[in-house]
Amino acid sequence: PDPHTPQDALSARMAFLAEADRLKTVLRASLLSDGSRRENSGEHSWHVALYALVLADHAGPEVDIDRVIRMLLIHDLVEIDAGDHPIHGHNHDAAAQELAERAAATRLFGMLPPAQGAALRALWDEFEAAETPSAQFAKSLDRVQPVVQNLVVDGGPWERFGVTWDKLAQRVGRPIARGAPALWDWVAPRVRAWFDRNG
Amino acid sequence: PDPHTPQDALSARMAFLAEADRLKTVLRASLLSDGSRRENSGEHSWHVALYALVLADHAGPEVDIDRVIRMLLIHDLVEIDAGDHPIHGHNHDAAAQELAERAAATRLFGMLPPAQGAALRALWDEFEAAETPSAQFAKSLDRVQPVVQNLVVDGGPWERFGVTWDKLAQRVGRPIARGAPALWDWVAPRVRAWFDRNG
Ligand SMILES: [Ca+2]
Repeated sequence: PDPHTPQDALSARMAFLAEADRLKTVLRASLLSDGSRRENSGEHSWHVALYALVLADHAGPEVDIDRVIRMLLIHDLVEIDAGDHPIHGHNHDAAAQELAERAAATRLFGMLPPAQGAALRALWDEFEAAETPSAQFAKSLDRVQPVVQNLVVDGGPWERFGVTWDKLAQRVGRPIARGAPALWDWVAPRVRAWFDRNG
Repeated sequence: PDPHTPQDALSARMAFLAEADRLKTVLRASLLSDGSRRENSGEHSWHVALYALVLADHAGPEVDIDRVIRMLLIHDLVEIDAGDHPIHGHNHDAAAQELAERAAATRLFGMLPPAQGAALRALWDEFEAAETPSAQFAKSLDRVQPVVQNLVVDGGPWERFGVTWDKLAQRVGRPIARGAPALWDWVAPRVRAWFDRNG
């Protein structure tokens, strides 16, 4: 039984939404397509949710696009506490990061009325586990969006982190291809050509 | 009949998504909740879509939340060409703004494969018309989010634009109350108290 009255529930939700605002101050490695500044995780979350809406025809038949969009809206909230960890960055302690993200999920989704907090936590867990078709498609979009941004700004983080084609194909190409093979087929030759010119 | 091959369609969608990135550079009147800078329309679009997901229980029974989320993801794209027009700003030529926004919708959604472009244009038209329950709820969220941000930063644009309680209740309170009466009931006394202290 949910202990909240309707007014309490709404106040809890508004506090959660005010806390979520902080995701707009978490900076990612990626640049905006005009190169003017680094992207933040709030606007990134919007962009990948828009990717899901626009690229729905390229998802497999078992993907529920509205579920993908919901996942992508919440997928990075844990960065409010745990920060963004660039996929090509160094000193990447994956186990410590996972612990920090789980603690963040407990704190943040715990701000909501219990039944709703549990449902959103389950959605985030599903995204993280990347086992369902919807989660795999969501992961593909989350991975392909910075690749596209890097192509548009002609390198960006790839140069800064000394990324090679082989590293990119393994760390990023595989999850993209798993959830959205058509997207990887589209982006791979473009990325390959960039590394052939600059690598 | 859609003249695009699947590869052409995907290229068209990727071009649209790259163009959409520009929404992250359109600045709004609202501040982030830490007061550090103005909010951009990309991160605002994420935040209001998250409002829809989290506040779904406060929508009327005829509201389709996934449709609301889709609307909110695309509702501000026209600002890429037409700019943001603060609701409390001066010299507000509503007819010219509407023309500019319609031209922007034609250009932007026209970048997509025709059937998809028409579907997203219809979704944007539905939001603008604010006649369906889903569009009215979406409009309420779009209007209430900056009010909440202004409360958090203790005024912000209200002071800058010299807003009064009466103006706010009319321009902003009415559309919020129409689509989401419970939200207006929650926020109105808090806003009223702010204007009593500062107005
Ligand atoms: Ca992400």
